[in-house]
Amino acid sequence: MAVATQSIQELCINSIRFLAVDAIEKSKSGHPGLPMGAAPMAFVLWDRFMRYNPKNPQWFNRDRFVLSAGHGSMLQYALLYLTGYDSVTIDDIKQFRQWGSKTPGHPENFVTDGVEVTTGPLGQGIANAVGLAVAEAHLAAKFNKPDATIVDHYTYVILGDGCNMEGISGEAASIAGHWGLGKLIALYDDNHISIDGSTDVAFTEDVSNRFESYGWHVLHVKDGNTDLEGIAKAIEAAKAVTDKPTMIKVTTTIGYGSPNKANTAGIHGAALGPDETALTRTNLGWNYAPFEIPTDALNHARKAVERGADYESEWNKAFAQYKAKYPQEAAEFERFVSGKLPDGWDQVLPTYTTEDKAQPTRKHSEICLNKLGAVLPELIGGSADLTHSNLTELKGAGDFQKGHFANRNIHFGVREHAMGAICNGMALHRSGLIPYGATFLIFTDYMRAAIRLAALSEAGAIWVMTHDSIGQGEDGPTHQPIETLASLRAIPDLTVIRPADGNETSGAYKVAIEKSKDNASSLLAFTRQNVPNLAGTSVAGVAKGGYVVVDSQGTPDIILIGTGSELSLCVSAAEKLTAEGKKVRVVSMPSTTLFDQQDAAYKESVLTKSVTKRLSVEAASSFGWHKYVGTEGDTVSIDTFGASAPGGTCLEKFGFTVDNVLAKAKALLG
Amino acid sequence: MAVATQSIQELCINSIRFLAVDAIEKSKSGHPGLPMGAAPMAFVLWDRFMRYNPKNPQWFNRDRFVLSAGHGSMLQYALLYLTGYDSVTIDDIKQFRQWGSKTPGHPENFVTDGVEVTTGPLGQGIANAVGLAVAEAHLAAKFNKPDATIVDHYTYVILGDGCNMEGISGEAASIAGHWGLGKLIALYDDNHISIDGSTDVAFTEDVSNRFESYGWHVLHVKDGNTDLEGIAKAIEAAKAVTDKPTMIKVTTTIGYGSPNKANTAGIHGAALGPDETALTRTNLGWNYAPFEIPTDALNHARKAVERGADYESEWNKAFAQYKAKYPQEAAEFERFVSGKLPDGWDQVLPTYTTEDKAQPTRKHSEICLNKLGAVLPELIGGSADLTHSNLTELKGAGDFQKGHFANRNIHFGVREHAMGAICNGMALHRSGLIPYGATFLIFTDYMRAAIRLAALSEAGAIWVMTHDSIGQGEDGPTHQPIETLASLRAIPDLTVIRPADGNETSGAYKVAIEKSKDNASSLLAFTRQNVPNLAGTSVAGVAKGGYVVVDSQGTPDIILIGTGSELSLCVSAAEKLTAEGKKVRVVSMPSTTLFDQQDAAYKESVLTKSVTKRLSVEAASSFGWHKYVGTEGDTVSIDTFGASAPGGTCLEKFGFTVDNVLAKAKALLG
Repeated sequence: MAVATQSIQELCINSIRFLAVDAIEKSKSGHPGLPMGAAPMAFVLWDRFMRYNPKNPQWFNRDRFVLSAGHGSMLQYALLYLTGYDSVTIDDIKQFRQWGSKTPGHPENFVTDGVEVTTGPLGQGIANAVGLAVAEAHLAAKFNKPDATIVDHYTYVILGDGCNMEGISGEAASIAGHWGLGKLIALYDDNHISIDGSTDVAFTEDVSNRFESYGWHVLHVKDGNTDLEGIAKAIEAAKAVTDKPTMIKVTTTIGYGSPNKANTAGIHGAALGPDETALTRTNLGWNYAPFEIPTDALNHARKAVERGADYESEWNKAFAQYKAKYPQEAAEFERFVSGKLPDGWDQVLPTYTTEDKAQPTRKHSEICLNKLGAVLPELIGGSADLTHSNLTELKGAGDFQKGHFANRNIHFGVREHAMGAICNGMALHRSGLIPYGATFLIFTDYMRAAIRLAALSEAGAIWVMTHDSIGQGEDGPTHQPIETLASLRAIPDLTVIRPADGNETSGAYKVAIEKSKDNASSLLAFTRQNVPNLAGTSVAGVAKGGYVVVDSQGTPDIILIGTGSELSLCVSAAEKLTAEGKKVRVVSMPSTTLFDQQDAAYKESVLTKSVTKRLSVEAASSFGWHKYVGTEGDTVSIDTFGASAPGGTCLEKFGFTVDNVLAKAKALLG
Repeated sequence: MAVATQSIQELCINSIRFLAVDAIEKSKSGHPGLPMGAAPMAFVLWDRFMRYNPKNPQWFNRDRFVLSAGHGSMLQYALLYLTGYDSVTIDDIKQFRQWGSKTPGHPENFVTDGVEVTTGPLGQGIANAVGLAVAEAHLAAKFNKPDATIVDHYTYVILGDGCNMEGISGEAASIAGHWGLGKLIALYDDNHISIDGSTDVAFTEDVSNRFESYGWHVLHVKDGNTDLEGIAKAIEAAKAVTDKPTMIKVTTTIGYGSPNKANTAGIHGAALGPDETALTRTNLGWNYAPFEIPTDALNHARKAVERGADYESEWNKAFAQYKAKYPQEAAEFERFVSGKLPDGWDQVLPTYTTEDKAQPTRKHSEICLNKLGAVLPELIGGSADLTHSNLTELKGAGDFQKGHFANRNIHFGVREHAMGAICNGMALHRSGLIPYGATFLIFTDYMRAAIRLAALSEAGAIWVMTHDSIGQGEDGPTHQPIETLASLRAIPDLTVIRPADGNETSGAYKVAIEKSKDNASSLLAFTRQNVPNLAGTSVAGVAKGGYVVVDSQGTPDIILIGTGSELSLCVSAAEKLTAEGKKVRVVSMPSTTLFDQQDAAYKESVLTKSVTKRLSVEAASSFGWHKYVGTEGDTVSIDTFGASAPGGTCLEKFGFTVDNVLAKAKALLG
């Protein structure tokens, strides 16, 4: 394959390959195998099919591209550079995987314009892509008119063997097939190699048949290394099927072009080394210096800039026509995309007095969701098959189903992990949607990787978690969170809120909606069981994370700190202690996350340093509470697994009673 | 269906149904739908096929039964009672879901003899069953002789729609198909109903085709409600196929027999109520009082006791013959099953001096695993496709593959969650195997539910986790654990150990192996990068969780607490502070879990109360450290996500340097 015979397409494809090879060679770190093998499919896709505007990566109606096999990040950086994005220059590529660069080890949407979602943890990307396609389908159904289309784009994803082994990808593919998301097109880089060697060692299933069983349209390109027309025809065929997502299995050679390392695990995740790099240059007829791209190739690839400007300009015209015909809908669309909330949206959140009847906070959550759903049409989500336990249905908003994509209640099935990643994809569509996903709090364990990625990748999802303690009762220890709250509070940039009653539930939603618009995610933990509405709780208090709900005259003798269903125990205990002449402060701490963000003076006003007798009360692990109760404080907590019994019995047996709070408080008071 | 016409089989099946209905009615909590629909398949299986001994639930060669759809626990309790297990009496059934009962909400192996694994979190059970079948296949290949078979049992599992929606079940089914585990037989209770209603709302894939694509033998019983012979024939056909696992789709009616609630979500997870219970009695011709079982039915079902005694007695004879012919193998087998370790096994663990070269602790882990693997043939495991990054290969022990089940290196593929549950199943086979599973520490997020269940269900697995901090470097924040250690330390009954060097790695394995034999799981966190061997570290120290490695004369001015790769920073900082005349103690804290279990005097000797100036140093979240550093202490930690850059750069930029430790220590010292 001498250079003289290379077509312009081959030149471009080899440009991708050598940008990857050379960047990884320079950084001595990275994954050349995938970019070398998947360069043809990626180039055909980006050059002939994908609609995007390199000079405006945020252009609304762009096709979305997800590199689910995120370790092949150099593929994406090469594409961004070659097609003329300003976010990735040749100097950025030379800084691959270096501190502060635009080209980190895995694609990070919050670092590099043109990257839609953050991938690397395998299987997340394909599930994010389902979320992007859900967002498109929903907005198209909601806003498009028979005579005016403003939402109309594809979601493309490249995934590898690793993605296809992960359970999350199966979950996501199953629900995508169920929904018949026709504008989702996945290219499966079938290269037979994973880190442990040939996929024969652990992965011999028939992936195509599996996707067909999910209801996907499945195609196969047998020679993904050189059959560019075959790739193009497959993508065309994929686009022609509008009622099913398409999976194109593209059989390739990992590390294509490397004479000694192609088709081996050795090229998956390590630089080729100088010798093999030189041999690969010879083998592919590549007479260019590292990071040198032939002018013809760059000129060709950069036609994307002109195309992109045209696409956007056409769309702008279409939108102008839409706006003229449908000014109200256009205004709503513009509000969605701007990320602005309608004025006064939070006025719908109810407040309560102690006269209002005791209810589970999950019931308060249902009320909030429905009040908010009425004024925030961008609120969309559902549960992983626990709709009527989580109480997450938006009444009257209909079920999101094939043919009914304008509806807003999503049935995710028992697929917590995919639910998380789909919500992330919807949020990262950046069209104003506020996605929420619900299950029992304990089952955050099933979706933790997606919850973490929401926080990391600035996806403003809301996680609605009910049955938040041993108070859930009979289901027993497999279903009772103990360490769960602590483990979630430890995640950076995730706001965890466990409200105590109706007012605090309203406060929790106020924070969560605002955070979502700030591209930050929140996790709300609600009770299964009734809790009373307490005096002193407030929407504003929640925003501070921790605040005083009962106080004494002068410096208190003791501070009781409660969260969620246990705040009422603190209030009751305080009444008794006060009656006995003690000075007691009760602090409600719905969110340690938010409290930690307050200034020192505020924190001192709540947890006054001189008051070292402090008792936290939470029906969960003590883990993390010593930061607030100090070395002289104590906790009413549970550091073992729970037990199967009625919820009230569990709470009582494990010491979540006013008497036990009193006893522990008195022990501290000495 | 009048009672007069009921066959003995129908009587037994209806006995199961009404035990479930009545127990759930009494407790007003539980899931009657599955037991009512799955009673026929379960009865046929337990009555005609399964080999077990009710009077010795631990009989080694019993067939294993897993109720993956664990919410249907009353099905299993009914079977245990009817077939004559002493663990579940009629009084126990009357105590369903009550405090302290033998009949908790979901099956718990540590509560109820005859329950093999703990289920409830959906999808775990089918993956546990794969692990049980792996254990059988391995032990059979290892111990059986052409003329003497001592390991030979089936693993049966009943799973539902919920299990089949979860990604973990897909992962487990894929690898089981790859391995061709012929003695694994799954009965899929295809009842079309999940909590949100008809599975049509979220689950319309072709499950049978999917299992075929995994390489399973798939059968269908179209009328699982009444076609008992069809069920029996399918199980026979399943047993006849020895090179593939079998999935029998058994189409049933959830809540079969309930005139108004059958085939609705309403019967999935709630008591029928008195009216519908009465109607169901009439409909099924059931003229017995609650908890009354017709004598004929009980007599028939209890034949299992005699059968079971025969099975065990036959096996005992077979084993005696085996022992006569193969005394050495028999002794090894007996040692395996006894759970005893060979004398002096821990003598193989290496120790180091400061002269020994710096190595990553993952390399020390590899050395320990291989030394242990040589003396502990029960050590078996592998990685989720990161074998040569985790360094978990047992050299010379061969790959566990179809036709090579005696080998001990398991390639799990990129399936962390199934890996976890498969290891749990292997441990809960209770045949002495010590399973280990490995991936990057961050990807514990993918398998967290299984790690939790290992701890809860007393499965002595060892989790080998490498790349344990931002020191892993270039892969960036998606791959860098921050909150991960804290989130794992918070799990009850899980021992988390992060060793600092070679000695501590040996100490970590000593603890982990011993814990495994105690049916307790451990998680070991290892570095990717080099760490020096330090003076004062020890195997014995690790067992204490925290211990002094450097001390001063008299009460120290400050205590530096380090873990893993950061202990050396503490040691270096202490040298400099000592040179400046400060009295410094350095505490190595490889395991807060173990340290918390020490007595007060020991803890005081390490973290002396009067020394309030304390600084913890760990390249991870500060979450949880205030328990040890107190309110006057400080942490060198990272509470944001990491970044993509060479590991050394990451550590430096985020403050994990001797200089920064010194600066923070001096700030404390004032």
